[in-house]
Amino acid sequence: MARWQPNPRERLVFAALELFEERGYELTTVIEIAERAGLTKSTFFRHFSDKREVLFGGEAMAGLLADGIAAAPPAAPPFEAVAHALAAVGEVAFTSARREFVARRRAVIAMNPELREREALKGLGLTASMTEALKRRDVPDLTACVAAELGALAMKIAYDRWSDPADGDDFGEVARRTLSDLRAAAALC
Amino acid sequence: MARWQPNPRERLVFAALELFEERGYELTTVIEIAERAGLTKSTFFRHFSDKREVLFGGEAMAGLLADGIAAAPPAAPPFEAVAHALAAVGEVAFTSARREFVARRRAVIAMNPELREREALKGLGLTASMTEALKRRDVPDLTACVAAELGALAMKIAYDRWSDPADGDDFGEVARRTLSDLRAAAALC
Repeated sequence: MARWQPNPRERLVFAALELFEERGYELTTVIEIAERAGLTKSTFFRHFSDKREVLFGGEAMAGLLADGIAAAPPAAPPFEAVAHALAAVGEVAFTSARREFVARRRAVIAMNPELREREALKGLGLTASMTEALKRRDVPDLTACVAAELGALAMKIAYDRWSDPADGDDFGEVARRTLSDLRAAAALC
Repeated sequence: MARWQPNPRERLVFAALELFEERGYELTTVIEIAERAGLTKSTFFRHFSDKREVLFGGEAMAGLLADGIAAAPPAAPPFEAVAHALAAVGEVAFTSARREFVARRRAVIAMNPELREREALKGLGLTASMTEALKRRDVPDLTACVAAELGALAMKIAYDRWSDPADGDDFGEVARRTLSDLRAAAALC
């Protein structure tokens, strides 16, 4: 049987992560990332618009969140729909098999200002995507904004909690608990 | 009497804004900004770390928010302290005299991806600054996070509302109304 080979996109992501860890983001070129992945520069640019983008996966996360909100039961209130979306993220992106990758990716981003900027912009995109998905469920505008903003905050806090190896729960459960903590915290504001 | 001249920092900001409007952010150099302001490149770099930074005023806004929260009456609950901070922003940065400048600055940022990234990162800095200032008032961690996150959202929405020339209220009043709307929205999540 042939050895399992990740798809070109994943190979590029892993190659980039390795190189950023070895020599830093600034000193790594797109050509080197493509070579390490056994691919060409033009394949790189078919998948990613620039070097920064390789760690951010385009709009996949935003789409995952929007789809998760759309798929929640029709009667679910906004936070319940957000919990549904975060559970979907836990099933696809923040799985236990990907825990190590996710932590390495995060450490690399924390070390580079350009990557932190891209991440900040992506974060706004996630919030906007959840806001729009909630509005499509006829949630009133301001309520959609608040639920999406707190949903994005829950995602960050749940991610920190889930990163702790002492916590064996899956991401979706951690996120649901976090949303409920945020609701209690909001009542004290 | 001598004609009033804004300080070097403000001259650089206005010169940059004009040039970004005239020829776009990418095609403007730091030397051109300094020349337009009647100053040197080294003066530019004494005030700003790079070309992007000229529209973001360093950490001034983050400091303004933190000081406003610290100066709120000791017994003020978190949202009240945030309202205090947003009123301070209204008195210093979002004054009626600066309404036109603020709108022009915003239009320039909206047109350029690099400036949007920097703005996104600055937005995270504002939220972090408010979170820390609330914690120093002994607000519990999660409550501080939620109040700061919703405070940052209130600032954005209040800014949109205040930008509408039909609304004659000052920024602080608009922000206070917005915070109260967000509190009501949060209860429906």
